[in-house]
Amino acid sequence: MDVSALAQSVIAGDRRALARAITLVESAREDHRAEARVLVAEVAKSGREALRIGLSGTPGVGKSTFIESFGCFLTGLGLRVAVLAVDPSSARSGGSILGDKTRMERLSRDPRAFIRPSPSQTHLGGVARRTREAVALCEGAGFDVVLIETVGVGQSETMVAEMCDLFLLLLAPAGGDELQGVKRGIMEMADIILVNKADGDLKPAALRTQADYAGALRLLRRRPQDPEGFPKALAVSALEENGLAQAWDEMERLTAWRRETGHWQRRRTEQARHWFEEEVRHSLLARLAREPLRGLMEGLGAAVGRGERTPDEAAAELLAHLGR
Amino acid sequence: MDVSALAQSVIAGDRRALARAITLVESAREDHRAEARVLVAEVAKSGREALRIGLSGTPGVGKSTFIESFGCFLTGLGLRVAVLAVDPSSARSGGSILGDKTRMERLSRDPRAFIRPSPSQTHLGGVARRTREAVALCEGAGFDVVLIETVGVGQSETMVAEMCDLFLLLLAPAGGDELQGVKRGIMEMADIILVNKADGDLKPAALRTQADYAGALRLLRRRPQDPEGFPKALAVSALEENGLAQAWDEMERLTAWRRETGHWQRRRTEQARHWFEEEVRHSLLARLAREPLRGLMEGLGAAVGRGERTPDEAAAELLAHLGR
Repeated sequence: MDVSALAQSVIAGDRRALARAITLVESAREDHRAEARVLVAEVAKSGREALRIGLSGTPGVGKSTFIESFGCFLTGLGLRVAVLAVDPSSARSGGSILGDKTRMERLSRDPRAFIRPSPSQTHLGGVARRTREAVALCEGAGFDVVLIETVGVGQSETMVAEMCDLFLLLLAPAGGDELQGVKRGIMEMADIILVNKADGDLKPAALRTQADYAGALRLLRRRPQDPEGFPKALAVSALEENGLAQAWDEMERLTAWRRETGHWQRRRTEQARHWFEEEVRHSLLARLAREPLRGLMEGLGAAVGRGERTPDEAAAELLAHLGR
Repeated sequence: MDVSALAQSVIAGDRRALARAITLVESAREDHRAEARVLVAEVAKSGREALRIGLSGTPGVGKSTFIESFGCFLTGLGLRVAVLAVDPSSARSGGSILGDKTRMERLSRDPRAFIRPSPSQTHLGGVARRTREAVALCEGAGFDVVLIETVGVGQSETMVAEMCDLFLLLLAPAGGDELQGVKRGIMEMADIILVNKADGDLKPAALRTQADYAGALRLLRRRPQDPEGFPKALAVSALEENGLAQAWDEMERLTAWRRETGHWQRRRTEQARHWFEEEVRHSLLARLAREPLRGLMEGLGAAVGRGERTPDEAAAELLAHLGR
């Protein structure tokens, strides 16, 4: 494959090239990995940056509808929008997340939008790398906003938070006056909480829920990366397309503040280092699953199981084969 | 240090030698690690096995009182009992767990008992290895029962469950008829649930809680390693020393069944393999924190942070230094 030519096509904004490039970074084959590494480095030379927005929310809060409405709102402003999904469980669940583009009919036909469903992968480490590289490719392709959608599972949330500039948490109106079972850790990752379904019968409940969360957020200590008043909770209706402009205003305001104060760049720097270290750890452990270590590990593991060696003696022997 | 002589003293039942041996396995120094590995292997040659009992329970359920009562009950039967603690948070909390032997005054003066507080370590991987090796040393020293106490935190529970033959969950009586917030995962690890404080005013609540849990356990699918009727819930009073004999009977019954059916040995084999693999992973990643990789990682991480390299290019370069 001519990786340089592919990189140039991606940078030139060729959508089919971008799709092929993402397919390449999704591959686990070793020769593909080497090509993908060159490709991502080549595309990164464009120096372009998008606003990376993470979006989390449990099933039923209306994530697809929100992405459709919010995505179209952004393209209506003239912005180019890419949507990626992180779903480590898609192999099991049959790929419900973004699997069905018909739920984003308008956005998927929009020439300013690019939607990429989650690949079938079970390995969270692999999903992280693939998503991170896909984000970098979309940035190089000139998108202004990259939306990274994730399901409401703790681990994938943390991963997405580690690769985005802004993190949105989408919630549904709560039944009573109590907060929904949102894990404290996820709430602390959110920059903006959006209570969806502020329409029709649910509107009063949505406004009440929004007020509850706004109150709860005021109780949290202000983080250094936030200006006064953030994190914040807003009510939106993805269905009626209400509150989207205000939400976008807040995102722009927060981003501008972070850029001015240097937090934006500092976060990107830390994230890049984090992913480098993660990649080293992941690759190092991956060697254990390959020959010759795999066979050696199997044999020593059997000896340990029979009680002929202690776990630590056997581990020391295996590691001696790896050199210093 | 004469490691062989120390190993022989441990096997001969010398308590001071055992304490010194555990101190050695707790050390993170590399020369100590090498000695510890030889020591554990030497002691393992005794071929002795204890019944390893894991004990979990959140603060306030009376764990110290239970260990004191149950430990003395066992020594009263003529058994030798070692008590170890796993507390990955002890460095922060100031070592509340078993830090104060005065809470087990009777047991700590009992010549058939050996109590070892948790060392101050923050690293869960280090705590796991230390505890596992301390268990092996206690077995070699001829103890019949090794009690491994842990705090009610998910990760340390899983770790203890991976190194014991029986797992006990200690609970306090619940206020109403509802189950306490015990994580499903922890409940599924438990072989026997003990509702403590079945004495005085709390006795009716304890019996009700015991009945609730017995009902809940019947709803779980029977695990292959359990005979009919297990896992089971019992009410005990550590304070009044009631129910301890029945609890011990059930533990013996369960152990006998597992020994007969081969589950006991199979579990030990799987656990040994698990710890071998964990040790390999842990040691492999530990290399990243040592020179020359540490310095290399620092330099490449800085380049990634400045955007001069992609995370994956830099990772590939680092790994190339590790050879195949």
